[in-house]
Amino acid sequence: MAETKIKVAIVGGSGYTGMELLRLLLPHPRVEVAAVTSRQYQGKRMQEVFPSLGSSGLVFSNPAVEELTAAGQAVFTAVPHQEAMEIVAGLQGKKELRIIDLSADFRLRQAAVYQEWYGPHRAPELLAEAVYGLPELYFSRIQKARLIGNPGCYPTSVILGLAPLLQAGVIEADGIVIDSKSGVSGAGRSLTLGSLYCEVDEGFKAYKVGGEHRHIPEIEQELSLLAGRPLQVTFTPHLVPMSRGILSTMVLQPVKELTWKDLRDLYEDFYSEAPFVRLVGEKDLPNTLRVRGSNYCELGWRLDRRTGRLIVLSAIDNLVKGAAGQAVQNLNILMGWDQTLGLTQLPLYP
Amino acid sequence: MAETKIKVAIVGGSGYTGMELLRLLLPHPRVEVAAVTSRQYQGKRMQEVFPSLGSSGLVFSNPAVEELTAAGQAVFTAVPHQEAMEIVAGLQGKKELRIIDLSADFRLRQAAVYQEWYGPHRAPELLAEAVYGLPELYFSRIQKARLIGNPGCYPTSVILGLAPLLQAGVIEADGIVIDSKSGVSGAGRSLTLGSLYCEVDEGFKAYKVGGEHRHIPEIEQELSLLAGRPLQVTFTPHLVPMSRGILSTMVLQPVKELTWKDLRDLYEDFYSEAPFVRLVGEKDLPNTLRVRGSNYCELGWRLDRRTGRLIVLSAIDNLVKGAAGQAVQNLNILMGWDQTLGLTQLPLYP
Amino acid sequence: MAETKIKVAIVGGSGYTGMELLRLLLPHPRVEVAAVTSRQYQGKRMQEVFPSLGSSGLVFSNPAVEELTAAGQAVFTAVPHQEAMEIVAGLQGKKELRIIDLSADFRLRQAAVYQEWYGPHRAPELLAEAVYGLPELYFSRIQKARLIGNPGCYPTSVILGLAPLLQAGVIEADGIVIDSKSGVSGAGRSLTLGSLYCEVDEGFKAYKVGGEHRHIPEIEQELSLLAGRPLQVTFTPHLVPMSRGILSTMVLQPVKELTWKDLRDLYEDFYSEAPFVRLVGEKDLPNTLRVRGSNYCELGWRLDRRTGRLIVLSAIDNLVKGAAGQAVQNLNILMGWDQTLGLTQLPLYP
Amino acid sequence: MAETKIKVAIVGGSGYTGMELLRLLLPHPRVEVAAVTSRQYQGKRMQEVFPSLGSSGLVFSNPAVEELTAAGQAVFTAVPHQEAMEIVAGLQGKKELRIIDLSADFRLRQAAVYQEWYGPHRAPELLAEAVYGLPELYFSRIQKARLIGNPGCYPTSVILGLAPLLQAGVIEADGIVIDSKSGVSGAGRSLTLGSLYCEVDEGFKAYKVGGEHRHIPEIEQELSLLAGRPLQVTFTPHLVPMSRGILSTMVLQPVKELTWKDLRDLYEDFYSEAPFVRLVGEKDLPNTLRVRGSNYCELGWRLDRRTGRLIVLSAIDNLVKGAAGQAVQNLNILMGWDQTLGLTQLPLYP
Repeated sequence: MAETKIKVAIVGGSGYTGMELLRLLLPHPRVEVAAVTSRQYQGKRMQEVFPSLGSSGLVFSNPAVEELTAAGQAVFTAVPHQEAMEIVAGLQGKKELRIIDLSADFRLRQAAVYQEWYGPHRAPELLAEAVYGLPELYFSRIQKARLIGNPGCYPTSVILGLAPLLQAGVIEADGIVIDSKSGVSGAGRSLTLGSLYCEVDEGFKAYKVGGEHRHIPEIEQELSLLAGRPLQVTFTPHLVPMSRGILSTMVLQPVKELTWKDLRDLYEDFYSEAPFVRLVGEKDLPNTLRVRGSNYCELGWRLDRRTGRLIVLSAIDNLVKGAAGQAVQNLNILMGWDQTLGLTQLPLYP
Repeated sequence: MAETKIKVAIVGGSGYTGMELLRLLLPHPRVEVAAVTSRQYQGKRMQEVFPSLGSSGLVFSNPAVEELTAAGQAVFTAVPHQEAMEIVAGLQGKKELRIIDLSADFRLRQAAVYQEWYGPHRAPELLAEAVYGLPELYFSRIQKARLIGNPGCYPTSVILGLAPLLQAGVIEADGIVIDSKSGVSGAGRSLTLGSLYCEVDEGFKAYKVGGEHRHIPEIEQELSLLAGRPLQVTFTPHLVPMSRGILSTMVLQPVKELTWKDLRDLYEDFYSEAPFVRLVGEKDLPNTLRVRGSNYCELGWRLDRRTGRLIVLSAIDNLVKGAAGQAVQNLNILMGWDQTLGLTQLPLYP
Repeated sequence: MAETKIKVAIVGGSGYTGMELLRLLLPHPRVEVAAVTSRQYQGKRMQEVFPSLGSSGLVFSNPAVEELTAAGQAVFTAVPHQEAMEIVAGLQGKKELRIIDLSADFRLRQAAVYQEWYGPHRAPELLAEAVYGLPELYFSRIQKARLIGNPGCYPTSVILGLAPLLQAGVIEADGIVIDSKSGVSGAGRSLTLGSLYCEVDEGFKAYKVGGEHRHIPEIEQELSLLAGRPLQVTFTPHLVPMSRGILSTMVLQPVKELTWKDLRDLYEDFYSEAPFVRLVGEKDLPNTLRVRGSNYCELGWRLDRRTGRLIVLSAIDNLVKGAAGQAVQNLNILMGWDQTLGLTQLPLYP
Repeated sequence: MAETKIKVAIVGGSGYTGMELLRLLLPHPRVEVAAVTSRQYQGKRMQEVFPSLGSSGLVFSNPAVEELTAAGQAVFTAVPHQEAMEIVAGLQGKKELRIIDLSADFRLRQAAVYQEWYGPHRAPELLAEAVYGLPELYFSRIQKARLIGNPGCYPTSVILGLAPLLQAGVIEADGIVIDSKSGVSGAGRSLTLGSLYCEVDEGFKAYKVGGEHRHIPEIEQELSLLAGRPLQVTFTPHLVPMSRGILSTMVLQPVKELTWKDLRDLYEDFYSEAPFVRLVGEKDLPNTLRVRGSNYCELGWRLDRRTGRLIVLSAIDNLVKGAAGQAVQNLNILMGWDQTLGLTQLPLYP
């Protein structure tokens, strides 16, 4: 007997994140996508806009919030920050509705920090209620949540790499250097010169260097909680000529002598119940190609005996574990299902 | 209640085709991969060789044929031509075993043609029994088969594009011009200068031009059967700087006046029960990116009012519909399952 | 003693063609770029807009036509069709000014044909005077010209491949099938969804299929002249996930028995004084990577003994031999210099 | 009157570095390539092996050392380390011969350090004589040298970025973190699984993490000299899916308050006579695509007001400024020519 499905709505389905949500939710065994909204494509059939997703019969709509809440038991909001908070606030009335917001609007716990990086928060009363949707850290809180702030792509890769170390107190909390590299889909589907094929192909560059990237407060919030005290990081994002993937390279100062195997034990312990974290072997290192299209995160590390530094590497697919896949994982947990439901596809390699 | 699984073996699991079989079969709901062989990686854990496939516990082996037959109810042979026929001949004793051969050894119906293009056939008695595994043409024969010659990647893309037209007799059988373009994974995982990143990246070229490619007899065999008389094609393969995908462009001479919609009707009719064929709309054209990682084939066409020619375009993922996915589709049919089982993943775009 | 330089102006310097003109003209030993115009970047320093071109001191301007004519002895117009004719018409007064137009406005000899494909021609009186700037065919006419219609990228690749054959009458003029593939820079630097990295990367598709591409009349005009009678071609353009390069595959019907060496003689003869045409060897085939960044055109061919067809392949860099490089070659000829001046860079491989 | 040319020989011309030397030297106005050696391609015409380089008439040879010295006034050795020292030692007799070695064999000043990272040095007596060929630091020493140790690609990018800062003493010498990313040509043209297109495309990874890369002692040697005391760096190299280019991201601790403009002054001063160093503007950042195919190095920097760190970015083409271009620059200086001779090509963008 097939199990019953719940109805979900996707608000803002016209970007790469929305498209990825559709890719994962359309074949999900317990989900029916009841509505997908887009101002840009309103009235168009999904098949026409995203032929790769096939002929589901879905049509992009632009419903009022009330209709939206009627549409389903869960809503994914995949619109830009500032817009998301308006929609989420408008959905407040329906208490049984589960909301997974993929923007930055419900990731930061303090409205003042949000304001500093993104502008004024117009639904600050919801911040206390929102749960940061990183299941590897907050599984039991997500189970009971109503509103999820789905993590950013860079923060997911960084926090998964550093959480075990900071919680165990084996590295200095100060002076962490993070060098992250992202595929181009992280920049979205909007028309900007820098996203043109010819501007990206065969080039490599950094951007928003010098503490400018908006994912920094999110990274620092979570790492500070893990470390038990405020910390700041030096974070440099880069653009890689590829469509998907984030690799973060983190240079750390151990507080005591450590071996590769000590760290293996630490990571294994921390992630013993995390089905999507893959620890690579002693002679191996993470590679974004090996997680492409999947919800997996590869973690690896090396000790530099010369300088005493520890280098940790973390690879995810920015659209899956860094966005839509994590959102589906959160839905699974919210609904009490197996957290891997609909996420068991293996990476596409090559 | 979960349904029972059958055990399958993969012979030759170390190339991209073997890897893709594993990607599709490991999460298949009715299949357990009981054995995977590789001379190159014998004794190594699959996880070590292909980390993207995760920790299934599989170890590459190199068993004798007898052990292999004991391993399962179905065997996929993914070894080079000439080697495949030896293994398949060796499996002859076990009549209940289903064999899906991904080499060229059982695709051609006549040993003489095989000999001309590949060398002597050492199991010609099996050719009559083997069924050409293109389910869109031979579904009912596949259901009853014991040995499947799984089609080549180029032939799959070409035959799916031309079958409805040739069967309906709406195009000239003579003078067909086929220009096909393939991603690099079609060249396999062996170490050749021409497969190095720096030799391929940012370059485009043709190869085996002038009637040299070994997929030609396979294409001509099937098109001739559809046309009801022998025909020859001009086939030019090209290499595209991308990992996956084949696009075939076919220039044809209609025998009578046709409209786009006439052709739409013809194709819809022909493929009314083909779940993996997607006909693109009147303003759209096939694109390999839109079938990547999936078993779909996109078909589109245009009439050139100036020259009177019909141009048909066909896009597949060479490793899926062009190899491993089609093999799994064949397994599903052989076993009496829904032919889409384990193949419902949507394409990875972008 | 250094030779004196002439002053040239570039009208429309903000796209990839303008950028490529600057790349080639800034280090040209006999040229000083006196002015470069752009509405989009007016007032900005070239270095700021195109940092790769270095600190020449040039500033994008938007001068009236009169100022422009004052600026130099030669003008390159690299603006869209329809705009180009206005500018060229406005430059009429200055008879000693040499004009090389990189748009389509002065490539077609008949205003009626232009109108059919591009819209009304508002300076038809100039068409008779304009010379089609393909030096391998029209060297002596270019020497005496005042106005050059610089050929399109696809036509350059096709005409260079077919000219010797049509002129010698060794192939049928009817039924020519051309399958061309271009890198993405051919689509220009404007912001369109289809030019985004994530929409292009790892995908391959055809576009403007069925006699729709505007380069068709240009190809047919020149091939008809070579054949000595009107002909039509079936032309299918494709988009390759790479920045530069065009490969054209042309399937032809010989009118008599030919050997590879017969054709070698024919091509060698025809191109004996063409420094930028490279004939590849009997075991080799053209590759766009091997002409990248250079003004070379690689030509190769194969006879298909099975079908009797001749397949010709032609590779160029669409921005160099297909646009800016050819324009510089035309300037060199117009000025009586060695036609290779400033164009002796070897291709960038890899 | 054309100036006279010198004859040069290239030892080991079959890899990407040798190929790039040929690309730059064949059109060099003062150089005639008199000999190019290759064991692999001995007896083959260069045109056959590297068609992109055209028909120079050169044939790969495998001469004895004596013949080699007869061949020219300068020799470039582009063979693997350990092999290079044998050849260079063998060329000792001819005192007027200038030698530019592109391997690691003459970059390190101390045989003991060489031994630790590469193995025993069999010509240690030459180390004192060899000059480290980074013209931006050692111009006058290069002028008088006989033997040049041409710098490694990563060291070139790193040292050019840090030299002004360390010499001025404005950053801490300890704790420097370097995260470098290289295109695939850095791995050479040999057949390894990791260099296959399908293994690289759409993937990003680190390699030799934890103080393992052999360019570390070279970086530390030069940075220590600049700092005036021994220092160690944490260096993590990465592989980017592109053919050419290195970007290094360096995280530093200023010893005093600095502004962007302070640093601009410092860099401008230091590189006032360095024609190949390009300092990018305050709102810009280096990009490998903008130096591709050229000998330029782009440098940029940002101060992170939150953490107090300085981040410096450096982009080069690994095959040009990181290898063959720098070697030609060294030749120019050795011969007393303008150091930019034959190196004035602008970058190929896109």
